[in-house]
Order: sequence, then structure tokens, then C-alpha cells
Amino acid sequence: MSNPTQAKKVPSGRITPRAQDFARWYQDVVLQGDLAEPAEVVKGCMVIKPHGYAIWETLHAELDRRFKETGHKNAYFPLLIPESFLKREAEHVEGFSPELAVVTIAGGENLEERYVIRPTSETIIGYFFARWIKSWRDLPLLLNQWANVVRWELRTRMFLRTTEFLWQEGHTAHATELEAHDEALRMLDTYADVAENVMAMPVIRGVKTQAEKFAGAVKSYCMEAMMQNGLALQAGTSHELGQNFARAFDIRFQNQSGSLEHVWQTSWGVSTRLIGALVMSHSDDRGLVLPPKLAPIQVVFIPIYRKDPERALVVERARCLAEELKQARILVEVDDREGYTPGNKFFHWEQRGIPVMVEIGPREVESDSVVLRRRDVEGKQTRPAAGLSQTIRETLDTMQAELLQTARRRMDENTVLADSIERIEHILAGVTAEKGGGKFIAAHMKDDPRCDAKLKEIKASVRCIPLVDAYDGPGKCIVTGEPTPQRVIIAKAY
Amino acid sequence: MSNPTQAKKVPSGRITPRAQDFARWYQDVVLQGDLAEPAEVVKGCMVIKPHGYAIWETLHAELDRRFKETGHKNAYFPLLIPESFLKREAEHVEGFSPELAVVTIAGGENLEERYVIRPTSETIIGYFFARWIKSWRDLPLLLNQWANVVRWELRTRMFLRTTEFLWQEGHTAHATELEAHDEALRMLDTYADVAENVMAMPVIRGVKTQAEKFAGAVKSYCMEAMMQNGLALQAGTSHELGQNFARAFDIRFQNQSGSLEHVWQTSWGVSTRLIGALVMSHSDDRGLVLPPKLAPIQVVFIPIYRKDPERALVVERARCLAEELKQARILVEVDDREGYTPGNKFFHWEQRGIPVMVEIGPREVESDSVVLRRRDVEGKQTRPAAGLSQTIRETLDTMQAELLQTARRRMDENTVLADSIERIEHILAGVTAEKGGGKFIAAHMKDDPRCDAKLKEIKASVRCIPLVDAYDGPGKCIVTGEPTPQRVIIAKAY
Repeated sequence: MSNPTQAKKVPSGRITPRAQDFARWYQDVVLQGDLAEPAEVVKGCMVIKPHGYAIWETLHAELDRRFKETGHKNAYFPLLIPESFLKREAEHVEGFSPELAVVTIAGGENLEERYVIRPTSETIIGYFFARWIKSWRDLPLLLNQWANVVRWELRTRMFLRTTEFLWQEGHTAHATELEAHDEALRMLDTYADVAENVMAMPVIRGVKTQAEKFAGAVKSYCMEAMMQNGLALQAGTSHELGQNFARAFDIRFQNQSGSLEHVWQTSWGVSTRLIGALVMSHSDDRGLVLPPKLAPIQVVFIPIYRKDPERALVVERARCLAEELKQARILVEVDDREGYTPGNKFFHWEQRGIPVMVEIGPREVESDSVVLRRRDVEGKQTRPAAGLSQTIRETLDTMQAELLQTARRRMDENTVLADSIERIEHILAGVTAEKGGGKFIAAHMKDDPRCDAKLKEIKASVRCIPLVDAYDGPGKCIVTGEPTPQRVIIAKAY
Repeated sequence: MSNPTQAKKVPSGRITPRAQDFARWYQDVVLQGDLAEPAEVVKGCMVIKPHGYAIWETLHAELDRRFKETGHKNAYFPLLIPESFLKREAEHVEGFSPELAVVTIAGGENLEERYVIRPTSETIIGYFFARWIKSWRDLPLLLNQWANVVRWELRTRMFLRTTEFLWQEGHTAHATELEAHDEALRMLDTYADVAENVMAMPVIRGVKTQAEKFAGAVKSYCMEAMMQNGLALQAGTSHELGQNFARAFDIRFQNQSGSLEHVWQTSWGVSTRLIGALVMSHSDDRGLVLPPKLAPIQVVFIPIYRKDPERALVVERARCLAEELKQARILVEVDDREGYTPGNKFFHWEQRGIPVMVEIGPREVESDSVVLRRRDVEGKQTRPAAGLSQTIRETLDTMQAELLQTARRRMDENTVLADSIERIEHILAGVTAEKGGGKFIAAHMKDDPRCDAKLKEIKASVRCIPLVDAYDGPGKCIVTGEPTPQRVIIAKAY
């Protein structure tokens, strides 16, 4: 049974409808879904509650397995970074210095050299790479770190942007630019695989414009997802760092012909932000909807009874069937709490996004059946109790597939073409995180900071230059009029 | 294959013998075993390298499974704690304030309220417990957090005491003192189970004296292990916090008769320090020795060949047998690197503590046999290749059991009785972490700060009052002469 803390006898949680205020809806779903809550006493931070953390554990496991299968190993580097390290890479310090938390006192004394809490670890890891890498034999070096990072953000939202967040950061070093390029793309594909096949969240893989790339990278790849309000969310990034950090930290290797070269590096990361993306991809006005592959509990049995003899009967039956599901490796619980009505229980688990609920009353026991409710569709179905684990497995698989389909359809239907800035402005007029109505707009635009600046005026941005051009090839930039090879994706974004 | 970074063509690593300088030996084993290295640029910190981190991942998995089986859930609380929070519990702030790292600047501005980096999370978690706990229905609340913490230590040693370390911290709240007591002991037993049955490290479970208990606790339980130099190492602690933090953070619940009461709490933790304990329990003058249950790689095949046709034959054979072991869920690698002699390879894996090495040359292929070397015993054995996975499984199980036996025998042989302070002083004279020669001394001593102070003069301490009195029951305190119920364990310690 889930911890009773998470239940309230009288359902108190109201969820603002999406149509009324999407931003508020999001917050309500996170709170009522028991995923997290704000930690007002620590600016911009949150507490990740057990139900939210369990989702992170599954994402962690899914990602970690893929990292290891592609030859990466985990390691752990210090939380604190000498302030001077950040200054070694000019763009990097410029990008991150406004967001740093600085430790100036430790052990009761003012520090001579101050430390920053890592906002990301390219610098400290670069320092160690320089110590470890001597020869071509040491390459590629493929490391990953699971860690917390701190970026002092002005405007925060649970999961989407918090001062502290949990993430993984991959850091690799290669002998050639081509290998680093392949690595950056391989990890982007790994992320897209998890997004689509675990989170049921379709993404567009692409390249960031020069104006939008990671501070210190040569090229940033990203995956962009569309939330239910039509806003874009950058769900993961993978960077070719070129030799920038290799020069800053003097990371060199002796190549096979005996001369010294700087290594080529990548870095890539996804964070607890993915949980925010998950919420805004699938949930509804009744609360959280979890794809079965990420649900910490996939099935909850709700025994229905009036009197004690009935209770013993249906609870026993529910436990017996639950045991059968457990054997089939389905994550299942029986909600046999007393003092809660079935209505309370449905409400409780619905808000927490449990994919399937199974009702069992005396009638079902007698007829050897169960009543199934799928979280993402209306209504319920009576099914035979015989072969239940197979029935549930199929239901979960179907739900997983349909969530992806629905999200993909929504993204497709809300992606439009535009051939002028005015048109983009018109399409995005009045779009906010609260009101929704956002679109992905495919337009011809050069990768030129002037174009990015133009979009900034209308509070939009180039989300990416898609890796696969799904549109009409080359055209004229709608800002500069110059020829450009393909359409880019423009949107308002988180 | 392991990452080539971790290999050097010419074995350069020398390990100082234990008898010469145990402290240096420890450092050499950690470095040559590729577990970690100091991060001199961040005071008192280290980098945990992939081989070391993989051990931590296994410990994490073993502990986490046990925590979940006993009803605990994971959550995540902020890294930064408002400085004022620590001051709410008088003993707690006194204990921790000398070790704090303080963030005074963030986002480019001086902070009005400064934050400390968590040295432990009783305070911030207490704050949230007060928000979450309303009624007896909310209890027990059983949470755990996997996190990094920072304590500014003067003298640091890799794994044993580092400024930043990784750990888990359990935090629970209960309706009664008895339940909290049971919980604290249950988690101590969980730790002892992992120490003995996974790490092959015998421990003594006991209670800390009032002088040695956790700052803010009512009672601290601990497990103490003996390192090869006879020094004690506190390997895990579990605290009854009483109602101290409940009063400081106003954590109250309505009991079943409707009145408000403060909750009873526990907290308990183990850290990456366990890896240091592991090293000092089993390793030898040739380097790391890993118990099979914690070895990231349990078996390495070393193909022996002179010419290319031989190479193809033996490597093929090794891969085929390795595949068989993989099917039996044994963690195995084939070291088919070229340009390294078998001697280089043995040396490489021996320093990294791999439990079993399997040699295969043309002779073994022909006779359908293999040559096994166990890391913890001298010599090698020729065994039939048929049924190899069974042979290896038995070898690993035997090694796991014998490591525990050996460590237990060492602890027993080095535990002595003493009935005066002078005798203790004599026994521990000249004992240091470097020179070794330490003992566990069972003596009658009261739980009284005067006694602890007396031991401090000779650089020893009461390690614990054992939960199970293995000695002669009540006696007279060797400091105060007053009656005392049982002998306590005294030692020099890390």
C-alpha cells in the first residue's frame, strides 16, 4: 500500500481546467499528483516527493542502461568548482556567470579561492580529462555523471526550471571531430528513443542556432517537444564542444604518428525537467496521466464492498489476482485502506495518473470477472478474471502506444507553415503559457543572430533546425531574404 | 572491454606494503585500483572513477532494495538549507557549524538569508514533515534520500573522510517512541546485513556513548568494523532523534483520541565511506581485493598466445566461454587488448581486485580446460572447461564466504580485554593509522563524558556499547569505579 500521507480522507484537491489557465493546471497536476511541491524557503527549489522521484528512478534506469550499452561508464566529480575554472572558456563563463551560486565561507573562514556550485561540469571534468588523457589509446573516453546542479534562475516552475535540479551529464573525449560528431548524434538519438518509446512523447531532433547554442559549444543538438498548450519545451541537448574546452584545459593526446593534438569533446544532458514535459504531454483536467512504462504503479485494485463479510471476500480476491499480476512483472497495488470510500480511492489514484484501475465487488467475484478502467479513456469494461495478466499487459501496451499517437497527432496538427514574420506574429499573437494556443511554425530562416533577435521581439525563438527536413527544402529567409537550405521550427517556448 | 584509459602499457603503479606504511598502502590501493583520485583543486574532495563508482552503484542497489522492502520510499530535498534552520536545534548547530560551506552570493547578488550546503538534512526535512504530517493516519512516514553532502573537514582521506561525499539518509517519523526505536534498530540491522553479507565485512552493532552521539540525537546506534591495521571504522549510523527535531520544527500529529503530539523520529545513513572500509578489509600488498558480490567485473579471461593463428583460436574460445558465463549472470570480460603482455594484463586486473582470472592458451583449448586464479589466494588451478559457469559460481561463493571468515577471524583475534586505563594505554601505545597494530579492547566503562574525555587523552574512543554483550556482564568502570552493566569496545579509530 502507498503511504497514507499521500491520501486525504476528503478529496480536497481541485485542478484548474487547462482551458482556464494552463500554467495553473500544470501546477495543480504536479501538486495533486503528489509529484513535488515548491520549497519556498529555498529560492526556486522544490521537493521531489516519492511519486515524482519514482518516475525519475525509472527514467534514470532507462537512460543508464542505454548509456552503458553504448560503452559509457559512470563517475562522480566534485559539486564545487573553483571560480577561476569557469573563466577559462570565454563563452562558457559569459553564459553561466549570471546564474552562479557562490560559496565564499567554509569551515568558519572566508575562502581565498571561492567555489561555485556546479551549473554544469565541463570545466572540472576538463581539468581531469587533461590529467587522464595522454595517448590515442586513452580515447575515446566516455563518461557520464548523475548529479545535482544549481543555476540561479529568476523565474522558476516545478520541474521545468528550478534553481537546483537533478540530471545526468555525459562528457566524452575523442581523437577526431567526426567521432565526436557521431557521439553527439548517437546520444541525441538515445534521448529521442527514451522520449518517444518510454515517455510516449514525440520530439523533433534538430540543431540549435548559433544564438541559442550552449555556452562553449560549437554545435548544440536538441530534441524539442510540444506541450498541450502548443509551447515548445527543450527536452534534452547534446553538444559538440569541438576543441574549446580542450584548449581551455589543455587536454591533449599523442596521436598514432606521435604528435600532440587537442581532443574533440561532447557533452549531453537531460534532467528532471523531463518530468514536467511528461506531465504537460499527457495529463488531463482530472490530473496526472502516466504512460505505463513510467508509472511507479501500473495497476491498482479497488475492492468494492458494503459489509465486513463482503470485504474479506473481495479483498482476498483482489490480493490473489494482484499476486498473479506481480508474477507477470506488472507493478500492482491493492488499495485495501479502510475508512475511504471507493470514490475517494478512485479520485486518489486518478490524480496520481495510475494507468489501470481494477474494480472488484461481490458481483465480480461471483461471475469470475473484473471491471477495468483505463486512465486515459472514458468508461469501464467488464473482463474475465481468467488470463487477467495477459489482458492487463495488452491494455498497458495499447495505452502506451495510444498516448504516443495522440501526442504525435497533436504536434502534427499544431505545426503550420509561415512565409513571413508578420504571419508568425499573427499565429503566435496572444499565445502564452497560461492561455495556450501555441504552434510549431516551419519557416525559412537563416542561422543568423539577427534572425534570432527578430523573433525575440515577438517572444518566439527558433527551436531548432530539424535534422530531417520534413518540408519543402531550400527557400528565402523571411528576415534577410537570403537563400537558406531548409525550414526551421519556430515557437514560443518554456 | 574496459576503457583503455584505465590501462597503462608499462605497469607503473607501485603499492607500498601494509607493513611499511598502512596509510600510504591504502592510498596506493585506491589509486592503483582506479577507484578514485584526489581533486586537489577542490579542498578535500575526490573524483570517484568508474571502477569505484560501479562499486557504489552496487551498494546503492543492495541498500535501496532493502529500504524499499521495509516500506521506505525515496524522495529528494534541496541541497541548500537556510542558515537559520540549523540554529533551531541547539545541539545540531553546535555539532555542524564548524563544518559548513556557506553560499553568500547567488545570481550576482549578496543573499539576504545565506544558505548552507546540507551537511545532513534533518532540518530541511523536518520543515517539510511539519507540513505533511497532520494525523496519526500520516504515520509512519518512511523516507530516504540519495544525495551528496558537504562537511568542511580539516584532514581528509579518499572515501574515509572527504569534504563532499555521497550517501543515503533515511528520515522517518512515528507515532510512538517504541516504533521509532524499532525503526532505528531495523535499519542498523539492514546495514549490518549489507556489511556482512555483501561487503564480507564483519561489524559490531552497538550504541554510541552520549559524548559520541549524533548532534541532535537522543541515541545513536552504529556499526563498527575493524580495518587491517586494527583501527576501528564507524561504517554506518542509525539515530533515535526522539522529539528534538519535532519540537524544533513543530512536527505534530493528531492522535487517535484527537489530541496533538510531537512525532518521534529517526535518521540513518551510510556513505561512500563504505568503499574505504571495503578496501581496508580485504585488500593486500598487490592491491585491491573485491568480494564477488561487489565486483563490477567478477571474472576476466586472459587469452595467452604467441602468434596470430593462436590468437584467433584462444580469443574465440575465451569469448565463447565468457558468453556461457554471461548467460549464468556472471559479470565477465575478455581482455583481448593487443599490445599488452599477459603479465601486464594480470597486473592490471589484480590491482583492480577482480575476483577470478581465467587463463586460456592453446594447451587449454586442446585439453578442453582452463586455468583459474583466485584473487585472494596464491596459485592457480587447472579445471575442465565443461561446466565452467558452475565452477566459477562455486569459486565466487567460496571466495565471498572466506573473505568474511578471514575478516571475522582477524577481528576476533585482535579483540582483547582490559581492566584498567593503563592497560589500554599500553595496548594502544604506538598504534597509528600508518603503523597499525590496533586492537578492539573490551573494558568496563560508564557512559559518562568524563570517561570519554579520559580516552581522548590517549587518542582512543569508545566505539560503542555492544548491543549483544559477548563478555562477562556487569563490572566496575575502569575510570570512575562505579558499577556499569557491560564492557564497551574501545579503540583507536578513523
